[in-house]
Amino acid sequence: MNITLDQISAAHERIKPFIHRTPVLTSESINKISGATLFLKCENFQKTGSFKIRGGMNAVLSLSTEELKQGIATHSSGNHAQAIAFAARQVGKKAYIVMPATSPKVKVDAVKNYGAEITFCEPKQKILESTLKDIIQRTGAAFVHPYDNYQVITGQATCAKELIEDVPGLDAIITPVGGGGLLSGSALSKHYLLPPAFIYAGEPEGAADAILSFRSGQVERAAFINTIADGLLTTLSDKTVAIIRQYVKDIFLVTEQEITSALRLIYERMKIIVEPSSAVSLAVVLKHRNLFAGKRIGIILTGGNVDVSNSDKWFKD
Amino acid sequence: MNITLDQISAAHERIKPFIHRTPVLTSESINKISGATLFLKCENFQKTGSFKIRGGMNAVLSLSTEELKQGIATHSSGNHAQAIAFAARQVGKKAYIVMPATSPKVKVDAVKNYGAEITFCEPKQKILESTLKDIIQRTGAAFVHPYDNYQVITGQATCAKELIEDVPGLDAIITPVGGGGLLSGSALSKHYLLPPAFIYAGEPEGAADAILSFRSGQVERAAFINTIADGLLTTLSDKTVAIIRQYVKDIFLVTEQEITSALRLIYERMKIIVEPSSAVSLAVVLKHRNLFAGKRIGIILTGGNVDVSNSDKWFKD
Repeated sequence: MNITLDQISAAHERIKPFIHRTPVLTSESINKISGATLFLKCENFQKTGSFKIRGGMNAVLSLSTEELKQGIATHSSGNHAQAIAFAARQVGKKAYIVMPATSPKVKVDAVKNYGAEITFCEPKQKILESTLKDIIQRTGAAFVHPYDNYQVITGQATCAKELIEDVPGLDAIITPVGGGGLLSGSALSKHYLLPPAFIYAGEPEGAADAILSFRSGQVERAAFINTIADGLLTTLSDKTVAIIRQYVKDIFLVTEQEITSALRLIYERMKIIVEPSSAVSLAVVLKHRNLFAGKRIGIILTGGNVDVSNSDKWFKD
Repeated sequence: MNITLDQISAAHERIKPFIHRTPVLTSESINKISGATLFLKCENFQKTGSFKIRGGMNAVLSLSTEELKQGIATHSSGNHAQAIAFAARQVGKKAYIVMPATSPKVKVDAVKNYGAEITFCEPKQKILESTLKDIIQRTGAAFVHPYDNYQVITGQATCAKELIEDVPGLDAIITPVGGGGLLSGSALSKHYLLPPAFIYAGEPEGAADAILSFRSGQVERAAFINTIADGLLTTLSDKTVAIIRQYVKDIFLVTEQEITSALRLIYERMKIIVEPSSAVSLAVVLKHRNLFAGKRIGIILTGGNVDVSNSDKWFKD
């Protein structure tokens, strides 16, 4: 592991002109329900609507002029696509984004609005990758992987860094885990800046791969995929699994009902819009009361890009 | 009109321990779309989920020990019910709330959670009033009207007061208008604290009574009621129509589609949950670009109490 605190601090300075220092909100009523004192870092209010801009922006700004010359390319159905499209525009370069043809219109529109060129393909990992490969060969664009990239991980680390700076005396930080970019970055910031605290992750039972990788040390696949937390479907990577194994205290699974209940609390009590993936950490706190009650817990709400004309279905009984 | 600046300031001090000083948010992307610089006062984050606690709390705290002795009573299907239930609990008194039997479960539950006694009746104004009258006769509880009450209006004035204190140099303030408590309170604060600015109101075409009263000087009824802005269905009162006629610059009507578009912008760009009524002011800004472009506009987002399992319908095409 070769990401230092100096590198995280340098990344933070590098991306600061392009990101918001997002607010940390509290909720008396959710504190009462959970028994813990929660500090919710609102990356749903971040530029592009999610924390992904931190890693994407840092990666793009870290490329050399030569590497940047032909633009930037990636594949993503979600927030990383918006992050790279936004970052490319900031440096005046073209973004090539491969998206599954099934991507929600609202996400496609956002990527288009940032001026990126979108190529649609079948929603299969192999086809996404081969389509991207073709584009890179044709254009010479630089590839920025959504999480298996140290510059991306370093950028994501700035989120927990801000949370630790803004809220003294946290006992623990919890993030959701998908590909592990946010979790490994957060784990590194916690390691350097708040050694006595613990870092935990939440993962849906319906995308339970990180918990397997955490135990085996290898990139594992989920037994099945069935979750509304659509930002958490990917597996870990070699880079993220190594950092997570070293620095993360534990990973907890939560059910779909636990995610939905936590999501409803955030909507109803905090009056803010977050993606279902964001509710996973709160679901962990509510599930493991014995571990978290009475403690000061930092929670990263990862993003807020939802299709509002279709989000009620999460709450139907 | 007998509400002074000193009375507004005294009300503010009186209710401060019980309310939040809500944040004022901005949105680069909504500024770009509107051409104006908007400052959105987020009463959706207020205690009880709406500005109504300001007036309700001030009215309850202004009652004498003798008046308070037998508790407090009101009728409301909405935010005033929660405000009075909350305020009564703060002073250790019982609240009696008459609600239409058709009230959404989420609102009924909130009122119950504050410990109020609810009486359900047919959703007709006359029956609500006669049911309330019976309760008052039986219990001796003090009636706090949702807006035809100077203490309530004075309490609502504190919202624009905070906005004016927190954002220098506003050119205009816009609020929605239902019964006119918020609008008349805001108009008074603007009159005393920001004389060069203008105050406007937005009203749904599907509940267009205030615009008639504004012209005639009498309490008028809407020709028809058909709007998603369910906080704005009531007529003005003698007290509010007088203040509004004197201090408000103009009232603008907006269509259902204009309300929905503005609501969608708030949800998608700001990632916050507000009631449809809250979107009416933004709809006014978007409709009257010639009047507001280039200006610094304060907008009061009135509340955030929505049934999240049923809110997608607003956005269906």
